[in-house]
Amino acid sequence: MKVACLTGGGDCPGLNAVIRGLVRTVANHGGETIGLLEGWRGAIEGNFIPLDPMQTDEILPLGGTILGSSRTNPYKNEGLVQKIVDTFHSLKLDALVAIGGDDTLGVASKLYRDYKLPTIGCPKTIDNDLSATDFTFGFDTCLNTVMDAVDKLRTTAESHRRVMVVEVMGRHAGWITCFAGIACAADAIMVPEEEVDMAKICETLKARRAAGKKYGMVLVSEGAQLKGQDFITKDAEKDDFGHIKLGGIGTRVAKIIEKETGIETRDVTLGHLQRGGSPSAYDRVLGTRLGIHAGRLAIKKDWGKMVALRGLHIVAVPLAEAVGTMRTLYPEFLDEAGEFLK
Amino acid sequence: MKVACLTGGGDCPGLNAVIRGLVRTVANHGGETIGLLEGWRGAIEGNFIPLDPMQTDEILPLGGTILGSSRTNPYKNEGLVQKIVDTFHSLKLDALVAIGGDDTLGVASKLYRDYKLPTIGCPKTIDNDLSATDFTFGFDTCLNTVMDAVDKLRTTAESHRRVMVVEVMGRHAGWITCFAGIACAADAIMVPEEEVDMAKICETLKARRAAGKKYGMVLVSEGAQLKGQDFITKDAEKDDFGHIKLGGIGTRVAKIIEKETGIETRDVTLGHLQRGGSPSAYDRVLGTRLGIHAGRLAIKKDWGKMVALRGLHIVAVPLAEAVGTMRTLYPEFLDEAGEFLK
Amino acid sequence: MKVACLTGGGDCPGLNAVIRGLVRTVANHGGETIGLLEGWRGAIEGNFIPLDPMQTDEILPLGGTILGSSRTNPYKNEGLVQKIVDTFHSLKLDALVAIGGDDTLGVASKLYRDYKLPTIGCPKTIDNDLSATDFTFGFDTCLNTVMDAVDKLRTTAESHRRVMVVEVMGRHAGWITCFAGIACAADAIMVPEEEVDMAKICETLKARRAAGKKYGMVLVSEGAQLKGQDFITKDAEKDDFGHIKLGGIGTRVAKIIEKETGIETRDVTLGHLQRGGSPSAYDRVLGTRLGIHAGRLAIKKDWGKMVALRGLHIVAVPLAEAVGTMRTLYPEFLDEAGEFLK
Amino acid sequence: MKVACLTGGGDCPGLNAVIRGLVRTVANHGGETIGLLEGWRGAIEGNFIPLDPMQTDEILPLGGTILGSSRTNPYKNEGLVQKIVDTFHSLKLDALVAIGGDDTLGVASKLYRDYKLPTIGCPKTIDNDLSATDFTFGFDTCLNTVMDAVDKLRTTAESHRRVMVVEVMGRHAGWITCFAGIACAADAIMVPEEEVDMAKICETLKARRAAGKKYGMVLVSEGAQLKGQDFITKDAEKDDFGHIKLGGIGTRVAKIIEKETGIETRDVTLGHLQRGGSPSAYDRVLGTRLGIHAGRLAIKKDWGKMVALRGLHIVAVPLAEAVGTMRTLYPEFLDEAGEFLK
Repeated sequence: MKVACLTGGGDCPGLNAVIRGLVRTVANHGGETIGLLEGWRGAIEGNFIPLDPMQTDEILPLGGTILGSSRTNPYKNEGLVQKIVDTFHSLKLDALVAIGGDDTLGVASKLYRDYKLPTIGCPKTIDNDLSATDFTFGFDTCLNTVMDAVDKLRTTAESHRRVMVVEVMGRHAGWITCFAGIACAADAIMVPEEEVDMAKICETLKARRAAGKKYGMVLVSEGAQLKGQDFITKDAEKDDFGHIKLGGIGTRVAKIIEKETGIETRDVTLGHLQRGGSPSAYDRVLGTRLGIHAGRLAIKKDWGKMVALRGLHIVAVPLAEAVGTMRTLYPEFLDEAGEFLK
Repeated sequence: MKVACLTGGGDCPGLNAVIRGLVRTVANHGGETIGLLEGWRGAIEGNFIPLDPMQTDEILPLGGTILGSSRTNPYKNEGLVQKIVDTFHSLKLDALVAIGGDDTLGVASKLYRDYKLPTIGCPKTIDNDLSATDFTFGFDTCLNTVMDAVDKLRTTAESHRRVMVVEVMGRHAGWITCFAGIACAADAIMVPEEEVDMAKICETLKARRAAGKKYGMVLVSEGAQLKGQDFITKDAEKDDFGHIKLGGIGTRVAKIIEKETGIETRDVTLGHLQRGGSPSAYDRVLGTRLGIHAGRLAIKKDWGKMVALRGLHIVAVPLAEAVGTMRTLYPEFLDEAGEFLK
Repeated sequence: MKVACLTGGGDCPGLNAVIRGLVRTVANHGGETIGLLEGWRGAIEGNFIPLDPMQTDEILPLGGTILGSSRTNPYKNEGLVQKIVDTFHSLKLDALVAIGGDDTLGVASKLYRDYKLPTIGCPKTIDNDLSATDFTFGFDTCLNTVMDAVDKLRTTAESHRRVMVVEVMGRHAGWITCFAGIACAADAIMVPEEEVDMAKICETLKARRAAGKKYGMVLVSEGAQLKGQDFITKDAEKDDFGHIKLGGIGTRVAKIIEKETGIETRDVTLGHLQRGGSPSAYDRVLGTRLGIHAGRLAIKKDWGKMVALRGLHIVAVPLAEAVGTMRTLYPEFLDEAGEFLK
Repeated sequence: MKVACLTGGGDCPGLNAVIRGLVRTVANHGGETIGLLEGWRGAIEGNFIPLDPMQTDEILPLGGTILGSSRTNPYKNEGLVQKIVDTFHSLKLDALVAIGGDDTLGVASKLYRDYKLPTIGCPKTIDNDLSATDFTFGFDTCLNTVMDAVDKLRTTAESHRRVMVVEVMGRHAGWITCFAGIACAADAIMVPEEEVDMAKICETLKARRAAGKKYGMVLVSEGAQLKGQDFITKDAEKDDFGHIKLGGIGTRVAKIIEKETGIETRDVTLGHLQRGGSPSAYDRVLGTRLGIHAGRLAIKKDWGKMVALRGLHIVAVPLAEAVGTMRTLYPEFLDEAGEFLK
């Protein structure tokens, strides 16, 4: 059996764990695995590297993906899909494992539906916003990166009696902000799921200062949207979703807080740091398990499925059901985080 | 409402997160929380500190427990249980939240059963071997500590072409060893759940060396038991379970490997390091959520229950059902780890 | 003997180590130490806390300063200097240890010169740009923070075949950029000491890409100045030193690189992260030693001096000579870094 | 110009930084560098790999040495030295850079003296006990590893009100113990340079407990020697230096403390962890600079020298003068550490 795998979309820690788990499992059953380079681009161009089972031990601790990634979507350009089918046959492949987010998995789903290509999906999003799996790898490493950053910022904020605003990833879902907010003892969080009431947040920060807390810590999703226009300068650009243009919400929020509370306020945007680094133990284990089970699906010739985490177990769900729906933060978690925001 | 909490047994990262979650939730409902010092000893002696909701923000990143801990079990000495009942009344308590392992929770369960004391339990074991919850806090931090240590050891092992044996916690269950083994790309793991076949492990290590891998990494639970006696010196002490006396299995295994394979072998025992450190994001979130839900049980006057993680949710289970059964490693995980041990 | 200490200016890791070293040394000779709060403001207002020798053990691992800081300079407002003199006498102080940068130490120097106040200085700048000492504490922790960040960014840059531009601290001196550039295997560094030739840097990045390197890593000081105007949009604001306005050079450089090389480029500004965190071993040792020797100067009544690192030793230099001169990067280090930038 | 390099003796973080610095510098002057494998063994057997200047960027963050190491000393077996000379000529080498400790450098010195081989030395010892250089790379990373471990152990020690004894490296010199002791706020340190007075240490620990400190932290060099025999069981093995046999002093000290003070005491031996891990910024910079200057010596054909750190500068000293003398801890540092041990 000859299996190809590829990694698509934004990278995150744990991709190499999936690759290792897959390669070893396929090898244990007498098969071989190759890696297509730079997402669907490698599938289109037939560009690949062989993957050795024993050497992949060395990639487990590495962040990112040794295969490279891209946002190439073959369904956006005529003729590219056929090239993938051609590559599949010319390389004499038996299976194609696509590791990626909604976009990458959507292609795998359609290739299975339209061309009966034996595809298998593995979910990847650092934002944890895929609907068919409890958690996605990369999310835990990201939380630890945010937490370590905020732990560093806490002492400097306290030394200068400041409020510190930290902008984290999350365009449409607040998983990172909410979980990191709990883990960092944030005084306020702002997520895309709820319109942000800056007046209320400023009140909370002033009340805590008055009660003796010498610093404040605020976490804001890049996709958070502020309520009303009172606090917002008129030139705030908005994207197609009506959100304030990304990549600046942190600075904007900091300015509002400083102006409204009179407390010196600074902001930090963690940006690409959040995608980097060696995967946490949780992500190494989760990624590895998903890779193993993707391999086992291939061996069983169980096509058109995606591996997913449910409770303690890895299960298989139809790709067609898994893609297309973004999962926003469950109210349960916002409710829990709310205990600390009053 | 006046709630007391205590932490019992071996400490682990995340205890302070539970305390913070509990204190804040109780405060949000108008109640107050005090902390009994050093486990059940504080309940016996009436020794406590007040816990301020806002100040507990500062304890979230701290390892261990600000309340101190002990292994005091009031049921082992006549009269001590009555002292706890007396403390409960003299301090005018409405609820008692016990955060601990099987031993600590067993006391809480019996106090509820025998004295109708309004107790609530919160599970704690770094070994992840409690039966009523998916994961226990502290376990994830421990895995990251082991992983970081093994990542450090890998380069020195490779530089000297050595096998490195790392002894980790786990007297009767191999959760840490198995999960860390996956996260660390171990060449072999040894868990209490399976008799260890040293001959087979030595064969694997020799085969990998022959195939070009320049080093070996072996993880062994402190409670692992070696099969047969061929490799074991006759003076090996055993404990009541027939296991080789703890605190030395790593050194013993290293000596066997060096002798049988001819490969230079060293060992490291991580010991108390595994209990220490600032909790990981996962453990801060899990601990906090358990603390919140313990507080909510108290507010609802839902006694004799333990908070537990099931999938994504925190649920309440009867204390009486939760204690008394150790949870050993599920075969599913050993099977998955097995893909890398062939 | 009663000694007061204060911390002024931007905080950095290691301040608490100095405080601990000072407090313990003074205590060992029978004296006591108090901490004035929030820099010179505390000296003006007589606002202080007592400092216990044994409890200060617990502050050693903490970033920032337990005393708080401010940029208050008494020489900028009439009457404030006299208030400091009054505080000195009303608190019955025998010595005043000022821990801070050029501004803070300048005040200490003038108080000694003009009022014969028995002051002692301890140098602090995360930028390592004080002239009378080999290294300042905080600098090493900062380098490790930058290094950890860049290590995280490397894998995501490689996965996406990007150039990553990282903006680090350094308004007028490139110590952080140069040392971190060496420690991070940067492909290019931009420091305030040398006008930056963007055309040359873009050529280097293109050449390396052509030679097979899949990503690029560029470190830029916040105070770097770009040569010529070819690459710079006309609206670039400049500060009084003719530098492009701070807090944006990284983004600007990234845009130029992307435009000129055609390689996808992203930027990250580390900002306040660089001041935070638990001090590294180097900074804990250096800070502690400086604190000890400041205490010993006080005991010897050797006033108007600053403690400084020279080679392996802590020495005392006159405050008047130590302040007023910024130390830019030695050409020797730029020359060494240059081996990797060709 | 064709340069060979090798790494000998115990590995430590920063070796790859030296290799990178050397390779790039030689390449910048038109030369090439090869790496002899596993210390002098590679020189004897002519076993080597080519070293590419650009690819060595990737090895900078790696612990250990990509060349492997061994303790092979050609002067201990007749005929081996001649084989090195033969390898030198058959590989058409122009220079040989030996990176190692006293043993490795001693061979390089004798090869230059006896055979006029153009050798250059680079000092390496994690113990910081080489006499001709201010600091050796690896030492700083080791200190941070010990510090991180002790920071982890502090909270578990405090939770259980224990004394924790941590055994660290240092057979004949106490640099690691003393510097880490300062960085970790140890209550006691035990170094090989001073006979240890256990009675006095137990008194200190009891006094601090009585004064309210809830835990104790003790750092002991593996080569520390205890004074007198009162506390020591008669079966204590001693090595040739009269020291208690290594690899057990921590446990022994912990037992004495527990018995004499009545305080529960545990011990951890950090062992090989201390050699591992990605090098700290300090060690990456120091290693890189030494590698650059070793390359520059080769280009200048300045043979028989060793590169060394003096203050801020890298200098060259004759190999013959640099080897043969172990550098024990300067009394100045013990004196400074002593401020915290009273």
